[in-house]
Parts: sequence; C-alpha cells; structure tokens
Amino acid sequence: MAPIDVEQLARGVLSGRRRELAKAITLVESTRTDHQDLAQHLLERLLPHTGKALRVGVSGVPGVGKSTFIETLGLYLVGRQQRVAVLAVDPSSAVSGGSILGDKTRMPRLAATPEAFIRPSPAAGALGGVARHTREAMLLCEAAGHSVVLVETVGVGQSEHAVASMVDTFVLLGLAGAGDELQGIKRGILELVDIIAINKADGDNIPRAERAAAEYRSALRLLRGADAPWAPRVLTVSALRETGIDALWAAVEEHRCWLEIDGRLEDNRRRQGRSWLWSLVREGLEAALVGCAPVAEAVPDVERDVVSGRITPTEGARRLLRLFLQRD
Amino acid sequence: MAPIDVEQLARGVLSGRRRELAKAITLVESTRTDHQDLAQHLLERLLPHTGKALRVGVSGVPGVGKSTFIETLGLYLVGRQQRVAVLAVDPSSAVSGGSILGDKTRMPRLAATPEAFIRPSPAAGALGGVARHTREAMLLCEAAGHSVVLVETVGVGQSEHAVASMVDTFVLLGLAGAGDELQGIKRGILELVDIIAINKADGDNIPRAERAAAEYRSALRLLRGADAPWAPRVLTVSALRETGIDALWAAVEEHRCWLEIDGRLEDNRRRQGRSWLWSLVREGLEAALVGCAPVAEAVPDVERDVVSGRITPTEGARRLLRLFLQRD
Repeated sequence: MAPIDVEQLARGVLSGRRRELAKAITLVESTRTDHQDLAQHLLERLLPHTGKALRVGVSGVPGVGKSTFIETLGLYLVGRQQRVAVLAVDPSSAVSGGSILGDKTRMPRLAATPEAFIRPSPAAGALGGVARHTREAMLLCEAAGHSVVLVETVGVGQSEHAVASMVDTFVLLGLAGAGDELQGIKRGILELVDIIAINKADGDNIPRAERAAAEYRSALRLLRGADAPWAPRVLTVSALRETGIDALWAAVEEHRCWLEIDGRLEDNRRRQGRSWLWSLVREGLEAALVGCAPVAEAVPDVERDVVSGRITPTEGARRLLRLFLQRD
Repeated sequence: MAPIDVEQLARGVLSGRRRELAKAITLVESTRTDHQDLAQHLLERLLPHTGKALRVGVSGVPGVGKSTFIETLGLYLVGRQQRVAVLAVDPSSAVSGGSILGDKTRMPRLAATPEAFIRPSPAAGALGGVARHTREAMLLCEAAGHSVVLVETVGVGQSEHAVASMVDTFVLLGLAGAGDELQGIKRGILELVDIIAINKADGDNIPRAERAAAEYRSALRLLRGADAPWAPRVLTVSALRETGIDALWAAVEEHRCWLEIDGRLEDNRRRQGRSWLWSLVREGLEAALVGCAPVAEAVPDVERDVVSGRITPTEGARRLLRLFLQRD
C-alpha cells in the first residue's frame, strides 16, 4: 500500500467514490500497527457522518439461497433509489477458502450496479477480528452515503451473534420443511431474529413454504412468548422469482419504525457500542496474556494439571495470572 | 476463624465429619487472601479423593417445587444407602436475601438426616464467585464421601450454565401448562437439559402434566433434532406425593451409564475443567483491569466517547488496554 493521506482518503469516502471506500476498508482490515493507527484516525474523522443507514443482518444455513436473496433484495432497493452495501462475516473464509465469496460471480447483477457496493468477508482469521473489521467497514459504507447496509453471515460458530450485535434488524432465511429446518438452525438464533423469510416459495413449493412459515410462527410463540415487545414477522419469499420482496422490505421498515419509538434504536446502538468496547477489551487482554512468553510456556503444564485433577481450576488460573500480572 | 491446620481439616473432611466439611467450605468461600491460599492447599490435598459422586444439577423457575423435590429425592436416595449433599448456586442471594435459603426450614426432614449435608448458596456476590465456591464445595463433599451431589439453581442470569458446567446430569423441573411454561424458561436452557421432570403430577393434575410432558418432548425434538446423541428423557413426578421419583432416578442412572460409554464422562469433566480454568483466567484479567487505578479513572470517559460515537469501540479498547498493559 502506498503512503496514505488520511484526510484525502476521508474526503474520497465522503464523496462516495467506490475505489476510495474499498481502499479505506482495506486499511481498516490491515494488521499492520501503523495502518491500524491510520485506520482509527480515518474512522474518527468519519464517525460524525455515520449511523444513518438501515443496518440489516441476513443469516441462513448454506443452501437456503442467501446470495440470490441478497442480490434480488439489493436490486429491489436500488430500484427504490437506495444505495446498498453488502458486507459479510464469515470466519470460515480464512480456513476453508470461504463459503461466502462476496465476489462478482456470486451476485453478478448487483455487482454491476453502480449504486451497490459488495465487499467479501475479511480473510483475517478469528471471528473477533472478522466481525470488528466488518463493523468498521459498515461505518465506512455509511460515511460513503450507503443508505442500506446488508451484513451477511454463514452462521458459523458465534457469527450470528456478532452480526446481530452490529445491525438494527436481523433477518433469517429459512426453507420449507421447518421441522428439519429448525434442527439445522443454530441454537439460540431464533432469539436474535426480527424477521424470518421462508425462501424458495414458488410453484409447487408454495404450500410447503406456507406450512413452514406457520411452524416457525408457533415455534417463535413458544420460545419468545406472546407478549414479547416485538413479535417477529414470518413471511414467504422467492428470491428467484422476485416475489414477496416488497412485503419483506415493508417488514424491515415496520421494524425500523418500531425501533424509533421511545428511542429504542439509539438505546440499542449505545448498548451495542458499549458491548463491543468490552468484548474488544477482553479479547485484547486474552491476546496479551497468551502472548506473554512466561504464560505461554506455563499453559500446557497448567492445563494438564487442571485436567488431570492435580490442581483446581482456581489454582491454575492463579498461576497463569500471577505470571502475567507480575511479569515485569 | 481460629488458626487453621490444613492437614487436620483435610483428615476431618476425609473421615466424613459434617462439622469439618462445613468448616472447609467456609474456608473455600472466604475472600481473605490467606484463607484462599489455605483453601487451595486443602483442595490440592483432597483432589485425589474427589470425582466419584453422581453430580446432578437441578433447575426450574420459582414455584415449581424445587425444595420439595430435592427433599423428596434426597430422602429417597438416603433410603437407598446414598450419602447426599445439596449445594446451591444463587447469585441473587447477596442482593435480595436469596430465593434459595438452603437452611433447615426449607428441607426440614432432609436437614435432620445424618447421611445428608445441606449447604446454602455462598453469599459472596457475582455469579462467577458463587459458582466457583459451589464447584469447590462440591469437591469437598466428594472428599467427605458423599455419593450424590445435587446442585440447585434458581435460574437467575447465567446460573444454569454455571451449574451445567459443573455437573454430569442436568435435570429441569417443569410444571403443567408447558406452553406458558416454556416461555418462562430462560433462553437456551432446553439445550442444557438431560432430563425434564414435570412436577406436581398428582390428582386432577395428572392429565395436564402428561400433556405438558408431551409438549416438552416435541419442543425438544424440534430444537435438538431426532438424532441427538442423548435424547433428553421427559417424565412426570409428584414430589409432594413422592411418585415418579424412582423413574426419575432410573433416568439419571441411565444417563450416567450412557456417559460412561466411550469415556464421555471423563471427556466432559476434562472439558469442564479446562473451561473453568479459562473463565477464571478471564475473570481475573478483567478484575485486574478494572482494579487498575488509571483504567478505572479513564473508563467513564472512554465509555461516553464510544457510546456517543466520538471514537470507535476499537479505539476505546486500545486506550484502556494501553493504560493497563503499560501501567508500570
């Protein structure tokens, strides 16, 4: 990367130029310390221009038709004069080459649309890092004038929770056959969702999709109670046939209106900010501990002693903490 | 507390004397640094004599009849030549005076039984501390020859997860009217359970209890899948009429047998030990961070700047970590 002029880059992002936006995201994703400093300067400069987009998470198991859905939804929104950004949280991408490609071939029509911006998942390792980069990329997209940010996740590990903690509205894509389907859904995810869309509701499949929607509705009632402040909407769509997308977006907007009552949106975002702060602090502390040579040396012995029942976990923790905190 | 002779105390515990066991638990619960050191010496001395009990967690919302259930089960086990210990994880006890009293009035008959040992929840604050003390009290009970340890939780906050991470078998008590009931159950708890017992299945209530059991069974099938390695047992009991307790205990023993196949029990306990180690390390790190004066001073400003969107959570975390890690 050539020497970076933060002010120039900031102006480029604010004027909505895709190349500058892409470059800014690359800076945020860089692991170089000097780049990280510059990235934080850039973000501070741009923060006053962020926060105005509809932040929407999209999740669903592989095979549910996420790419087609996001492309269809993105094109629908562009048709309604929205500027759409698509980001992804995929912690598997570093390991397996990635199940979310985020490239031009996966959403060719949306990628070719000037009002849309698609960015693949950062390749940098652990969920914490991937999610942080995506969160900051979202802020950059907002500064660049994108009015809708779709954050996609494959649903690996804790990635839905990470996505839910950066968006305002969380959409889960499902398929007909909710009985089997529900089993495939990761534990706890039904508690995060604001809207469920049963995809592939076309042709012969429509009755099955409607039945699946009903099953989801009753599962949600059972799990979340009839008096929950927001009753998640469950509807059917066909991303391929481009049906049901308007109703889906109406539900997103309805959820947004509901969030704006009594300052819920601002409360949520404040809570999200605080919880990100502390999870990053915890992550940094653990990294410092594990990166401390005397600790790293002691860990295998301590773990072995704890696991074999020679010492208690309390004593093991005390040994590691002592090595770390009195390391100077 | 008088000066403590760890070796003498250890011998007292090993000979199964209730007074010495109670004294040892008090030592483990003490917040004094010198007591903590002695407690760890005591535990290390006793660890080779631990691990032989059936460790059973019991949870359920208030009103479900937990005390009566535990008393009935405890007396049933004593009748089968078991020595029973009852411990509790109740992080609310410090705040509210406690919903689990664990005293003689709550389980009067069991408390009067010499083969049983009942210990109320430690009053020391946060869940982490309460759970750690309970876990170590459990080890002391095992060293004292108790063959069954029942660990009770009121289900406040994350206490079920804490209990699940120290027991082998997790029993949830429910009531008839599963629809309403399921809503009252904390999110994620159905994923922890090995056995569900619908309590108060007596008189006119029996058909409703059976219906509730069926509803739980289908909710579990939906959530956990038909091919889960252990399909949780759902049965009905009446702690008051003392019916169904034998079938319940047979299910606990069946689960234990299943755990002993392929070394699952040992694997679980090893995993539990390792995860306790790291959660204690994390807890210790956070306590050290928050207890560090320059950090404590900076936290309000950093939180305000993050929440108001003046700086990113990343930058906020970097500021706090810098203050902590370069504090000397």
